[in-house]
Amino acid sequence: MKITRPTLLLDKSRCIGNLEKMLQKAENNKIGLRPHFKTHQSHEVGRWFRERGVKKIATSSLRMAEHFAKDGWDDITVAFPANILEIDLINSLSENIKLNLLIQSLECLNFLSDNLKNQVNGLIKIDLGYGRTGLLSDDFDGTDELIKKMNRSSNIKFSGFLGHAGQSYDARGIEQISEVHKEACSKMQQVFDHYRDEYPDISISMGDTPTCSTMDSFGCATEIRPGNFIFYDLVQEQIGSCSIEQIAVAVACPVVALHPERNEIIIYGGGVHFSKDVYNHTKFGKCYGLVVKDSDNGWSEPVEKVFLQKISQEHGVVSCTDEFMEQCTIGDVLKILPVHSCMTADLLKRMLTTEGEKIEMMGN
Amino acid sequence: MKITRPTLLLDKSRCIGNLEKMLQKAENNKIGLRPHFKTHQSHEVGRWFRERGVKKIATSSLRMAEHFAKDGWDDITVAFPANILEIDLINSLSENIKLNLLIQSLECLNFLSDNLKNQVNGLIKIDLGYGRTGLLSDDFDGTDELIKKMNRSSNIKFSGFLGHAGQSYDARGIEQISEVHKEACSKMQQVFDHYRDEYPDISISMGDTPTCSTMDSFGCATEIRPGNFIFYDLVQEQIGSCSIEQIAVAVACPVVALHPERNEIIIYGGGVHFSKDVYNHTKFGKCYGLVVKDSDNGWSEPVEKVFLQKISQEHGVVSCTDEFMEQCTIGDVLKILPVHSCMTADLLKRMLTTEGEKIEMMGN
Repeated sequence: MKITRPTLLLDKSRCIGNLEKMLQKAENNKIGLRPHFKTHQSHEVGRWFRERGVKKIATSSLRMAEHFAKDGWDDITVAFPANILEIDLINSLSENIKLNLLIQSLECLNFLSDNLKNQVNGLIKIDLGYGRTGLLSDDFDGTDELIKKMNRSSNIKFSGFLGHAGQSYDARGIEQISEVHKEACSKMQQVFDHYRDEYPDISISMGDTPTCSTMDSFGCATEIRPGNFIFYDLVQEQIGSCSIEQIAVAVACPVVALHPERNEIIIYGGGVHFSKDVYNHTKFGKCYGLVVKDSDNGWSEPVEKVFLQKISQEHGVVSCTDEFMEQCTIGDVLKILPVHSCMTADLLKRMLTTEGEKIEMMGN
Repeated sequence: MKITRPTLLLDKSRCIGNLEKMLQKAENNKIGLRPHFKTHQSHEVGRWFRERGVKKIATSSLRMAEHFAKDGWDDITVAFPANILEIDLINSLSENIKLNLLIQSLECLNFLSDNLKNQVNGLIKIDLGYGRTGLLSDDFDGTDELIKKMNRSSNIKFSGFLGHAGQSYDARGIEQISEVHKEACSKMQQVFDHYRDEYPDISISMGDTPTCSTMDSFGCATEIRPGNFIFYDLVQEQIGSCSIEQIAVAVACPVVALHPERNEIIIYGGGVHFSKDVYNHTKFGKCYGLVVKDSDNGWSEPVEKVFLQKISQEHGVVSCTDEFMEQCTIGDVLKILPVHSCMTADLLKRMLTTEGEKIEMMGN
């Protein structure tokens, strides 16, 4: 297939490798894998999970839940505080699927209780140390109040607790991830211990990509919920979640101008393709992506000292070596590993597998 | 119209005000306005320009040129180095419209010369001090060679020079913008002086939003080419291109959780809606947007000390005052001025005017 514009390439075998490793991890722990589908947003990739026995998923919006419900997924956790303004969508989804909503306030709960037309599961969001949303793990007045209210509501079934230790994204190396994980597990354990006698069968959902990729056990969790692991990216590699070889997506970008006088290559590929997510590379500093070597229809390892240094809306500036510059021609296509694959995939909206298959994602 | 999800609001009267001011500026200088349409990407907003006499536009990609050609625009400059991999699209577009392509290398020129099926105009990109792309303004060997080759080509008509002084985005205040502008004008003048006798009627295209918004004259330019000015945004306000009242877009975001214990409001609105573009607010530091006061269907000035402090993929964290927190309820909709309107609009793909009209933008 001829590439003419910035295109998200997907290496299916790397992707399946990442999936099978995570399935194995869940199986070893005898807990469920409820993958977060916000990273790939595609029916096709979703089916690769289903073929391997996955039956439950998480999404980051009700709209995304609707997208996957259309492809037959019928147990979906919207891992985002329930947006009561979308009550119509909540009602239409819950008519057909088992919809698990995140609840963390009485205001939200009262509204749902008054306006739901079908039964939904209510999960209480617990703050596992990230400090973004959720109730504190020792706020038993808060959780008690929510559970009581759910128990009185005919359409909301209290079904467990959910947390996201997003602070793991600031960790670098196994030791730091392990510290985050310990803190998150102990907070969740505190909640579970308080309710285990009364509610022995509730769901306890945890697990971001860094901890799920590197840790061996998950405390009281009944399911893990990583998302990014299906593709991984440069930030995950820096955190220590994956090796560079596990990164399953790259952006193919046409070369449109050469500046040998400053060893810069201008590519068609900017902020509207990669997003403006950036990370600090240990050698290059501010970096928006790493150029990798071509390998048949796919790619192999990064080219030494060749990286995406700057981006504007549509332009990217690749900093390179003399040697790389000499081999580069206008009309070439560079393959670049993204910094944050979730954001890049969300922008590009479709993928091309290294086997030549086109995969559509959720539209706008 | 009921807002249930992150939605780009457009204040048409502010937008038309920005447009008329820019038209006046071009008229005062007796030069053309060739607006860059990458900011709004919509047929409808494009028509507001057309109704006011604008006949020529710029886009940032061939795909975007195709999008606007479909709505009857027939003189389009693709203000991006010609991507030879899209030769088929170049040939189909140039069959129907006057297509102006940016050329800055012999490699590109030779390819086009061999593969074009219809006549296009060739503009040579000049580096006006930004250092991203283009030939240096004193590289007459380079420009001579390109012009000679165009003159020998049956399908490429040399038609002028184009530059983009993107370093104006680093300027803060009129004085710094003025310095950038002086440098850019003098570089372009150097080129023009060299060719004016032989090519008196060529096009000289310059002008980014900061300089076009604040400067009174444009040297040898025959047209100005700003884009962002139609919406403006917080970065432009900080640069000094506009007042806060001129910002014509805001993102409406549902409130999904409240954290009064730390004066934080969680909104449905994150990196996939705003982009990860960030700026340093003089008082708040790192800032992703400013919350504004509601005013009928639109908005008025920013609420003091209430701003978008952090974003992840779908979540935003608004930092606020006690007073604002007290009035805020789950299910409210906050209106937020974006940091970089081009990126935000590109992500949200449609707009809702404060008069209730839906406007579609270019799809993926």
